[in-house]
Amino acid sequence: MAGTDRFSFEKLFAKNAPVGAKTSFRRPKYDFAVAYPDPDTLPLEGLANAMRTALERDGKELSYYPDYVGLLSLRELIADKLVRDRNMKITAEDVVITSGSGEAISMIIQSLTDPGDVVITEEFLYLGTLRQMRRYSADVVGVKCDDDGMIPEELEATLNRLKGEGKRVKYLYTIPTFQNPLGWTMTLKRRKSMLEIAGSHGIPIFEDDCYVDLRFGGEDVTSIHSLDDSGQVIYVGSFSKIIAPGARMGYMVAPEELTLRAMSFKGGGGTNQLAAMAIEEYLKHEMYQHIDEQNRSLIVKRDAMLASLGENFGDTAKWAIPQGGLCVWLEFPEGTDLAAVQEQSFAEGVGYYNGTQFSPEGRGANFARLCYGHPSPEMVYEGVSELARVLERHGVIKP
Amino acid sequence: MAGTDRFSFEKLFAKNAPVGAKTSFRRPKYDFAVAYPDPDTLPLEGLANAMRTALERDGKELSYYPDYVGLLSLRELIADKLVRDRNMKITAEDVVITSGSGEAISMIIQSLTDPGDVVITEEFLYLGTLRQMRRYSADVVGVKCDDDGMIPEELEATLNRLKGEGKRVKYLYTIPTFQNPLGWTMTLKRRKSMLEIAGSHGIPIFEDDCYVDLRFGGEDVTSIHSLDDSGQVIYVGSFSKIIAPGARMGYMVAPEELTLRAMSFKGGGGTNQLAAMAIEEYLKHEMYQHIDEQNRSLIVKRDAMLASLGENFGDTAKWAIPQGGLCVWLEFPEGTDLAAVQEQSFAEGVGYYNGTQFSPEGRGANFARLCYGHPSPEMVYEGVSELARVLERHGVIKP
Repeated sequence: MAGTDRFSFEKLFAKNAPVGAKTSFRRPKYDFAVAYPDPDTLPLEGLANAMRTALERDGKELSYYPDYVGLLSLRELIADKLVRDRNMKITAEDVVITSGSGEAISMIIQSLTDPGDVVITEEFLYLGTLRQMRRYSADVVGVKCDDDGMIPEELEATLNRLKGEGKRVKYLYTIPTFQNPLGWTMTLKRRKSMLEIAGSHGIPIFEDDCYVDLRFGGEDVTSIHSLDDSGQVIYVGSFSKIIAPGARMGYMVAPEELTLRAMSFKGGGGTNQLAAMAIEEYLKHEMYQHIDEQNRSLIVKRDAMLASLGENFGDTAKWAIPQGGLCVWLEFPEGTDLAAVQEQSFAEGVGYYNGTQFSPEGRGANFARLCYGHPSPEMVYEGVSELARVLERHGVIKP
Repeated sequence: MAGTDRFSFEKLFAKNAPVGAKTSFRRPKYDFAVAYPDPDTLPLEGLANAMRTALERDGKELSYYPDYVGLLSLRELIADKLVRDRNMKITAEDVVITSGSGEAISMIIQSLTDPGDVVITEEFLYLGTLRQMRRYSADVVGVKCDDDGMIPEELEATLNRLKGEGKRVKYLYTIPTFQNPLGWTMTLKRRKSMLEIAGSHGIPIFEDDCYVDLRFGGEDVTSIHSLDDSGQVIYVGSFSKIIAPGARMGYMVAPEELTLRAMSFKGGGGTNQLAAMAIEEYLKHEMYQHIDEQNRSLIVKRDAMLASLGENFGDTAKWAIPQGGLCVWLEFPEGTDLAAVQEQSFAEGVGYYNGTQFSPEGRGANFARLCYGHPSPEMVYEGVSELARVLERHGVIKP
């Protein structure tokens, strides 16, 4: 302000205080970049009713500071769900509610990572997790995958190589179900061998199962957590996909010794109890019915994307048909550069993320992830065609 | 489990991963320990209605990940409120929404604290903040206060002494309005001189104003933030007291260079948008009416406490009459030990926190903070009498 010197904080910052994210980007007309769920099947009426019921019954509990581990009734609901759907042998005592699975992932990464520690991941992985791993200076090493999941021989070879180099591997992070961005679901056989290999190297498995409810084809495969009796598996899940990302509700299940450390990285006290009450009351009555409805809507969008991909990219790209989840992983010929034109494509109305953003080594400019959850089937269909036009215009693919 | 070795995480933990809080304690019959608000004036009906209205209007927005800085309409409401009530010269752009003010406080402390850095506080302060400062290994130095706030001569002397010792002071944390636990409101004169002294030493002021709305007597004093044109003041506030602690909704206002750092310590993405939508819609229409109603209820509870204190502690303790906030600060004669019997008192049904818990130096066993916000007036009245019986029974005070 006029006549006064501005105060400067520059010399006061902590040494380990990086500059964080403040603003979000503008959304393009056809937004295939972010894995948002379907806005038309959000349970808005159900949540409003549930909020009223829960407030009438338990509202006065809000006058207390929430339990750090989260609302007990929601922890019970989550434990029941994981026992039923994922064959896990747990109780509510094992569950901590977090602000989306993103908070759980961050808490676990902070608990286990000193700068330079190696973590193992699939060769491409959810960029939010990759960003958190880098934030805490992990050395992220990707392992090659095929359509069944991470390749055991590649994992074993990577671990042996790292051992030979004297490097300290802290954990193996995997998204075994509808892997993001790759789309496959790891087979039972691969899950068992991953557990065995990691176990023999004394490395815990960090299982991120946040897409598991969005299955509209194929068969469920049991959780890695359910295959382990030793306490070697950390499990995180989320309601972002079946309630809404804005509801910020996720959870973690981990051995108590780890949970106790992770809790020291939980910000802002217990997870929002107002939201937790509404979500618990809603899910208690309508969870599976809602999931069915949502998946019926998603499959139509997936099909719209597959149809338009066939028409527009049949000669230029390859993809697998996803049996669930929110995205298709496109592979263009080696040498295609989808990274260079990505920003321009956003500006011209079509958003996508290219492979380099999901790769620990920054590889994969010839891959793109297209998410179909949010736009209407018509917009999905149109948008994929529009993407082809954008890529042609910029000479990335031939018309 | 039988036949298998348990996996151990012990050797995998990050060096700076302390063991965090997992469980909360059992609440005593008469709970004067925690500054909970009045459960009977929580706006439950209003929040349920607001949730429905907001979901009907904006619900589909929940399908996106929330903006990291929080819901724009709530940021606007907060900015308007701070301009109107606290004379601050800000806009929504300056506001970041956090999961309670606790998250804001933690983010700011992390941004500004390297282990061993000195931070200045009032001689007794909110124990949640003190805990966070210690968590990041700050060297917390308390400055003597009287009924007008921190004593300027003491502040000046402390800063000069620390300067002489070559110590690095990072910020001055203050709760200027209804100081927790001391109860006073800092006078305008003191605010100005604090700003001047801190400014001349190049030290920012961290103003925690989370009790400001709970005024039922005396006159408002303008915010320290409003007295500064240089960008030297960080401000945090909360809806925990006027909506509910379980709603986990607070905010910070800071110069952008600091906010950008602080954002890197924000866990779990943007603050819960489902809760933010309900709170914004509710406050937009009923904020001041609700605050009035709440304060009319609180004054009755305060009066019940003062009456019972007079009857039960008139000869043994001293206290000031709070004009707002949620607690009375009791001073017993030097040598009285309220720390030794505190746990026993909880077990026998009367909860309070003794002074040592609020003191950077662990002083003040002859002080106790009694919160009157949560119990009914009858329970407040009874409970203070019961506290006297407990203290007599254990020989802390004479019958």
